[in-house]
Amino acid sequence: MIKIGIIGYGYWGPNLVRNFSEIQESRVIAVSDLDPKRLNLVKTRHPDIQTEADYRALLANPGIDAIAIATPVSSHYRLALEALEAGKHVFVEKPLTETAKEAEALVAAAEMRNLVLHVDHTFIYTGAVRKIRQLVDNGDLGDLYYYDSVRINLGLFQHDINVIWDLAVHDLAIMDYVFPLTPVAVSATGISHVPDKPANIAFLTLFFDNNVIAHIHVNWLAPVKLRRTLIGGSRKMVLYDDLEPSEKIKVYDKGITLNGSKENLYNTLIGYRTGDMWAPQLEITEALRVEAQHFSRCITHGEASLSDGRAGLRIVRILEAANRSLREGGRPVKFDWLFGNATHSDRLPVEEAA
Amino acid sequence: MIKIGIIGYGYWGPNLVRNFSEIQESRVIAVSDLDPKRLNLVKTRHPDIQTEADYRALLANPGIDAIAIATPVSSHYRLALEALEAGKHVFVEKPLTETAKEAEALVAAAEMRNLVLHVDHTFIYTGAVRKIRQLVDNGDLGDLYYYDSVRINLGLFQHDINVIWDLAVHDLAIMDYVFPLTPVAVSATGISHVPDKPANIAFLTLFFDNNVIAHIHVNWLAPVKLRRTLIGGSRKMVLYDDLEPSEKIKVYDKGITLNGSKENLYNTLIGYRTGDMWAPQLEITEALRVEAQHFSRCITHGEASLSDGRAGLRIVRILEAANRSLREGGRPVKFDWLFGNATHSDRLPVEEAA
Amino acid sequence: MIKIGIIGYGYWGPNLVRNFSEIQESRVIAVSDLDPKRLNLVKTRHPDIQTEADYRALLANPGIDAIAIATPVSSHYRLALEALEAGKHVFVEKPLTETAKEAEALVAAAEMRNLVLHVDHTFIYTGAVRKIRQLVDNGDLGDLYYYDSVRINLGLFQHDINVIWDLAVHDLAIMDYVFPLTPVAVSATGISHVPDKPANIAFLTLFFDNNVIAHIHVNWLAPVKLRRTLIGGSRKMVLYDDLEPSEKIKVYDKGITLNGSKENLYNTLIGYRTGDMWAPQLEITEALRVEAQHFSRCITHGEASLSDGRAGLRIVRILEAANRSLREGGRPVKFDWLFGNATHSDRLPVEEAA
Amino acid sequence: MIKIGIIGYGYWGPNLVRNFSEIQESRVIAVSDLDPKRLNLVKTRHPDIQTEADYRALLANPGIDAIAIATPVSSHYRLALEALEAGKHVFVEKPLTETAKEAEALVAAAEMRNLVLHVDHTFIYTGAVRKIRQLVDNGDLGDLYYYDSVRINLGLFQHDINVIWDLAVHDLAIMDYVFPLTPVAVSATGISHVPDKPANIAFLTLFFDNNVIAHIHVNWLAPVKLRRTLIGGSRKMVLYDDLEPSEKIKVYDKGITLNGSKENLYNTLIGYRTGDMWAPQLEITEALRVEAQHFSRCITHGEASLSDGRAGLRIVRILEAANRSLREGGRPVKFDWLFGNATHSDRLPVEEAA
Repeated sequence: MIKIGIIGYGYWGPNLVRNFSEIQESRVIAVSDLDPKRLNLVKTRHPDIQTEADYRALLANPGIDAIAIATPVSSHYRLALEALEAGKHVFVEKPLTETAKEAEALVAAAEMRNLVLHVDHTFIYTGAVRKIRQLVDNGDLGDLYYYDSVRINLGLFQHDINVIWDLAVHDLAIMDYVFPLTPVAVSATGISHVPDKPANIAFLTLFFDNNVIAHIHVNWLAPVKLRRTLIGGSRKMVLYDDLEPSEKIKVYDKGITLNGSKENLYNTLIGYRTGDMWAPQLEITEALRVEAQHFSRCITHGEASLSDGRAGLRIVRILEAANRSLREGGRPVKFDWLFGNATHSDRLPVEEAA
Repeated sequence: MIKIGIIGYGYWGPNLVRNFSEIQESRVIAVSDLDPKRLNLVKTRHPDIQTEADYRALLANPGIDAIAIATPVSSHYRLALEALEAGKHVFVEKPLTETAKEAEALVAAAEMRNLVLHVDHTFIYTGAVRKIRQLVDNGDLGDLYYYDSVRINLGLFQHDINVIWDLAVHDLAIMDYVFPLTPVAVSATGISHVPDKPANIAFLTLFFDNNVIAHIHVNWLAPVKLRRTLIGGSRKMVLYDDLEPSEKIKVYDKGITLNGSKENLYNTLIGYRTGDMWAPQLEITEALRVEAQHFSRCITHGEASLSDGRAGLRIVRILEAANRSLREGGRPVKFDWLFGNATHSDRLPVEEAA
Repeated sequence: MIKIGIIGYGYWGPNLVRNFSEIQESRVIAVSDLDPKRLNLVKTRHPDIQTEADYRALLANPGIDAIAIATPVSSHYRLALEALEAGKHVFVEKPLTETAKEAEALVAAAEMRNLVLHVDHTFIYTGAVRKIRQLVDNGDLGDLYYYDSVRINLGLFQHDINVIWDLAVHDLAIMDYVFPLTPVAVSATGISHVPDKPANIAFLTLFFDNNVIAHIHVNWLAPVKLRRTLIGGSRKMVLYDDLEPSEKIKVYDKGITLNGSKENLYNTLIGYRTGDMWAPQLEITEALRVEAQHFSRCITHGEASLSDGRAGLRIVRILEAANRSLREGGRPVKFDWLFGNATHSDRLPVEEAA
Repeated sequence: MIKIGIIGYGYWGPNLVRNFSEIQESRVIAVSDLDPKRLNLVKTRHPDIQTEADYRALLANPGIDAIAIATPVSSHYRLALEALEAGKHVFVEKPLTETAKEAEALVAAAEMRNLVLHVDHTFIYTGAVRKIRQLVDNGDLGDLYYYDSVRINLGLFQHDINVIWDLAVHDLAIMDYVFPLTPVAVSATGISHVPDKPANIAFLTLFFDNNVIAHIHVNWLAPVKLRRTLIGGSRKMVLYDDLEPSEKIKVYDKGITLNGSKENLYNTLIGYRTGDMWAPQLEITEALRVEAQHFSRCITHGEASLSDGRAGLRIVRILEAANRSLREGGRPVKFDWLFGNATHSDRLPVEEAA
């Protein structure tokens, strides 16, 4: 059983405490927070969990195997690094860090010590996203054509990060998980409607090799709430609507068929194919519970985390490049996939990933 | 009563013949088409309409006041120019021409001769779009924040123009009509999934002065059909869903409120405002009928066309720049609003517009 | 090729003329209507079709094989009987007659002369309804549990028949076709909101043997339009939404499972089963075209009509009983299935049905 | 501040404890339950609340002002009566009792002692239902025409009560609250698909004087979940969809207009009116919290409960009659509105209601 210390009991921390407490694979030993009121809340709800004003007490505690970090992004790098240096496995909120350079350092620190560095890309542990991954891996979609996501609603404006770092990060994490592909460049546009505040509307295009494209559309200032992703493939297409109470995933047997010879591409005839639609039943276990169990098994059984530090780094690298493109009105920015971080370690045998 | 000659009886021509025939303000005198089968169809349906294999017979006919052109875009420039030179008023399908240079020449040719040059931006004559324009003009939306449109479905792949020229042209025409603003630059991205064919997915961001942004999202290869536009303003926001059988327009009393002093922008507090939603009743007269009557009145009463050559030119200029940006992966392309074509003549008093 | 004469060129007649004209299996010889303006319209649209003010000219024409009747229901009985007596096959609008007694007489008249008597239950020729029938016949739904339909909208109030005879007749025809079962009684309730006019809201419950129930819900005075049918079975359940542009039929792998011994029914445990949803692709040929071809083949090849006079009689008998129950506040009225009309001849081998 | 004792800590009890604890107007003193495990759960969650195996300890406690009863319906009568006899105000789950006779006895017992008897018709305390009541009271809907509700989903089959007592009770309570009318008779039909179990599908028609009708449609065995009510009036119509995340209430300016003279009703012309749709913003406070505050004020300030014993009795009387009609295949059953229970006391001045 993994013994966990949790830093930060604000918005998300309580969910971590609850899930790591309820599963068999782990136990929450201690929680730290700077705010005494939050610590009191922990005491009331979980009299058996130790509370600490200073997170260093958690790092120094030899009875703690792993640290979960649920603090603002600006503190992720420092806290995660200290935890790794103290020999703890680390579970950290998304996005992993504020810069790719920091993320690289964390990946190196974890790999050097053979510790698990896990980023909380919660959505990839939902039944819906796991089903999409399965459809892609089974070849049901055929060749991948595009990934197109819309994530909009009214609020909650962040003061320190723009809407890409707040909302698009979810889409990037999902896409990174379901697509066995790494983008080569990004073009981002957007705008802020509040003086001196970060962009509240943004649009990202991600370019891939092999005629694949992705687009992510985020907005804090929309009158309606939408969470809708389309994934196009040569054989099938998927509509993922996270707001549907059931049937979140619809698989369409639709597409085009090309008839023509290689010699005479100009005369290619395009046919339209329309078949059945199918909405597979989905697992409904709470994603964070599935993730907490997975994280625990990564530590105890040496499983590779599906959202490891390298995945976190890939996302941060894209976010960083998107910010640069955003400032330049959509000028495409190529990624510098050094450090092997373009490789999806979770799709590789464990030896290669190590 | 205006006497009309119509060139082209393919996909759209029959709608023009029907509408110009049914209204009191005009009469269809003659139709030309290169295909004898199509001309026979005209004869069967409209025994009283003259048919001609050569469109020049229409231009030469002194009994014809105006020419409607419903042919492929590559022929628009030449046919419209000849018609204007023959002293005819012109109604031409969208997009006006293949290049802005050609569009400029047509505008000049029409203005020089004091002839009406009208582009068939059909959507702006729908009850829904006219209602949105009214809401904008009345100030109901407050300051405009954004225009965000999605127009996707499966098919129909065009062989000569990309999806921007085929689908986004509708959104650009609508936006040009309802927004009293002119964009200053465009960033476009997209991709083709069929070898050697034009892009079938594309995303356009349009930049305006004054913190306004627009985004248009088009796709010929989507498993579902969507026709949905969001317009954000400081007071109200509009959802326009053209596929709704009724309630195509929903007006949301939603938004943010900023509380803070000018001196201390960093501490601006953002509040979220949620009020009633309202779906105004819309006029349901067929758009093309409204447009045909408007075109006729432009000729007989000297009204300014709501979709005149200058509007057509503005759209073509954006399409041209979008193509350039598309080729360069989203690099922003600024517009060269020479020739006064950035001015929305339809919002000006007649003297200035002339 | 069947030669057809059509009586009545009002609302529905033009659809009959168009469909019987366009298919290979038949030809429209003549049309009669009391209104000279309607006859002129026939002449303009179909110069090759003979027009007659008096329908008797059609009955007397030896070149006509079959008569289609598209007149108000009060005239169906007389016209159909005269046509049968003149040796013509008959295609008649729904409902077949105003009374079951009349319907019985028509069935007898047709069977005696070995003529086809076909009722225009158009919906059973749609791809959607044929698919449901297929699912039922294949046993995909398991034991049938219920049929539950809602058909409401604003207008069109009829002056001579109530909303059951106008709208529920569609649901009864569909149910009669897809359910291999005959109801034994009906309870109907309803109300009129316009003085001295027939009921504009009504609710029908149909009782069957074997724990099956049906309910039909019709309303001319609803603010929204709904056309939605649920069919429950022990293995699967169907949602048929006729207003869906695509995916009109959704098949749900949902239901209950009973665990318990026969001895101890009280302790039966009910489990809930939730699986995939599936929307099969549907044929999209216009229903009336499919029906016109079917009717023609019934005459030429001796096929049994899927909506023969006995089906029409079953529907009229239910409508008649529903009216009686409606007047008595829902008191259940049993059907008097004499004359063998409870048997679905279309599900029987031809020998038995004859 | 009202001091509350709660009997029953099963499915609904925890919600009562939470809400009565969180508001200023009341405090939960003690909870009783027969199951020691449930009592332990109370202790863990609310260390300051007293727990008792025997509810009589609550009734005997002079520090308790009011008793809330959240036990199976079969125990409501006895527990409520004992509580009233012990001089406690009573808050009881719906339906109030198993028989109208029992409900009458409770009403009498409460009124004799001047104690508050309140039934937990939770829905009438939602923002949506309060808004509908307001629209009715303001005359916005004009003359009321109909109430039409659908409440279906898969599960949860009850073993002791049928689907009418489980689901339709909500609709009856809502209708009783928003309609200033009392039904005069009911026709109910339904069926059970599980041997020896209560009906799992049912349809109720309620008849009123004055050309008003209501229909309620409930089903535990539907593949989709629906919670949708239509209310028709002569001026406006309301669609209330409880599953909509926002816009639960839509008000349609739609209907018919009658043109005709009183002398010549047969020639009445019916016109169709279509105007704007409007979705008013709704209060989003949790209904049970609003209700808990209301119940407390009824005790402290002598306010009349909006869902008092007489309202509970009206509902039980309808349920009882519905069961009788159900057994007789829909035969209409008239209500015996003795005991003044047809009067909506909440719409009357307090003197008259007393």
